[in-house]
Amino acid sequence: MKLLHRDDLYAWSSFNKERNIDFNSIAWIRPDGNILIDPLSVLSEDYEHLNSLGSVRWIVITNSDHVRAAKELAHVTGAQIAGPFAERSHFPIKCNRWLYDGEELVPGLQVIELQGSKTPGELALLLDKTTLITGDLIRGHKAGSLTILPDEKLSNREEAVASVQRLAEINGIEAVLVGDGWSVFRDGSLALKELAASLVAKCS
Amino acid sequence: MKLLHRDDLYAWSSFNKERNIDFNSIAWIRPDGNILIDPLSVLSEDYEHLNSLGSVRWIVITNSDHVRAAKELAHVTGAQIAGPFAERSHFPIKCNRWLYDGEELVPGLQVIELQGSKTPGELALLLDKTTLITGDLIRGHKAGSLTILPDEKLSNREEAVASVQRLAEINGIEAVLVGDGWSVFRDGSLALKELAASLVAKCS
Repeated sequence: MKLLHRDDLYAWSSFNKERNIDFNSIAWIRPDGNILIDPLSVLSEDYEHLNSLGSVRWIVITNSDHVRAAKELAHVTGAQIAGPFAERSHFPIKCNRWLYDGEELVPGLQVIELQGSKTPGELALLLDKTTLITGDLIRGHKAGSLTILPDEKLSNREEAVASVQRLAEINGIEAVLVGDGWSVFRDGSLALKELAASLVAKCS
Repeated sequence: MKLLHRDDLYAWSSFNKERNIDFNSIAWIRPDGNILIDPLSVLSEDYEHLNSLGSVRWIVITNSDHVRAAKELAHVTGAQIAGPFAERSHFPIKCNRWLYDGEELVPGLQVIELQGSKTPGELALLLDKTTLITGDLIRGHKAGSLTILPDEKLSNREEAVASVQRLAEINGIEAVLVGDGWSVFRDGSLALKELAASLVAKCS
């Protein structure tokens, strides 16, 4: 796994040749049990590395299109799975917990629900108020800046833009770790504000 | 290949499990023939993508430890190879041209020689005065910031620090694309200044 911008955060990735971007998964290493977010299949060397960093307590899936290897990893690690509350009636795999806006999964990991994306109540996670982790709606197709899903993928563009604006109003975000594409590791809040401004400009 | 911060720049990577970082290669797409920098082996899908973007004119190798797949790629693409002038007497493969400080390989691609790294005259390249491409000396082990080779790998730390300071004095660099680890895509000049300051602080 690749070390991210904090000593307790790692990522592993898989290149997607249709979109020419990496898909990414995150591991947050904690004394009380590690947390994986949108985990892809883990190569044997990454699994060895992950195992050496302690047990996995939770796997968070941000939306039903990001189930990826969650079930298999839950099986081999004994982790519990948490998914988006708004998808609880039709989620493709069994979850042990449903996450909704404003709660914390564990101390320091705040849950944010996004609206208007391709699935209801897609989750974003805010770690220690400084690292935003996004699943599908906010993504990075061009290195150094953020974008959102194309209009045809959104269930409601206006609501999606409002969700981005809400995130852009949070100051002090250093990094935006995206599930799909290039993450931003410097001036995350500024990148979110730039994204929100570009979406509003497109509307008007 | 992954699109970088400009529409004419792509990268492909290979994860290195000993260091837990990606090794990266760059492709600059140009009407007059594309340029590859420190190219790793190309997967078939990446090769197809690369081929679809035109012919390869030059392969630049920043130092003798980054020869990687240059020879094979030169063979299949018909590209010429350029290497560091200071290594011309002992370079592991045949080069068609030796690059030295201050010249341009093609218009817009300025050559910078770095001193004190693990090989003599390691090359850095400055593209359009805004994108710095580094081989080995400057690298990214922690996402969002830059570092240099560990002291034991340097031939002369003082000279290496002076080379970093020289780069840090160039204003207007947007991105620093590293051969090893995390590239920086926002505020590249600031990241270089932070690096230079950290090295000087370590000296004093």
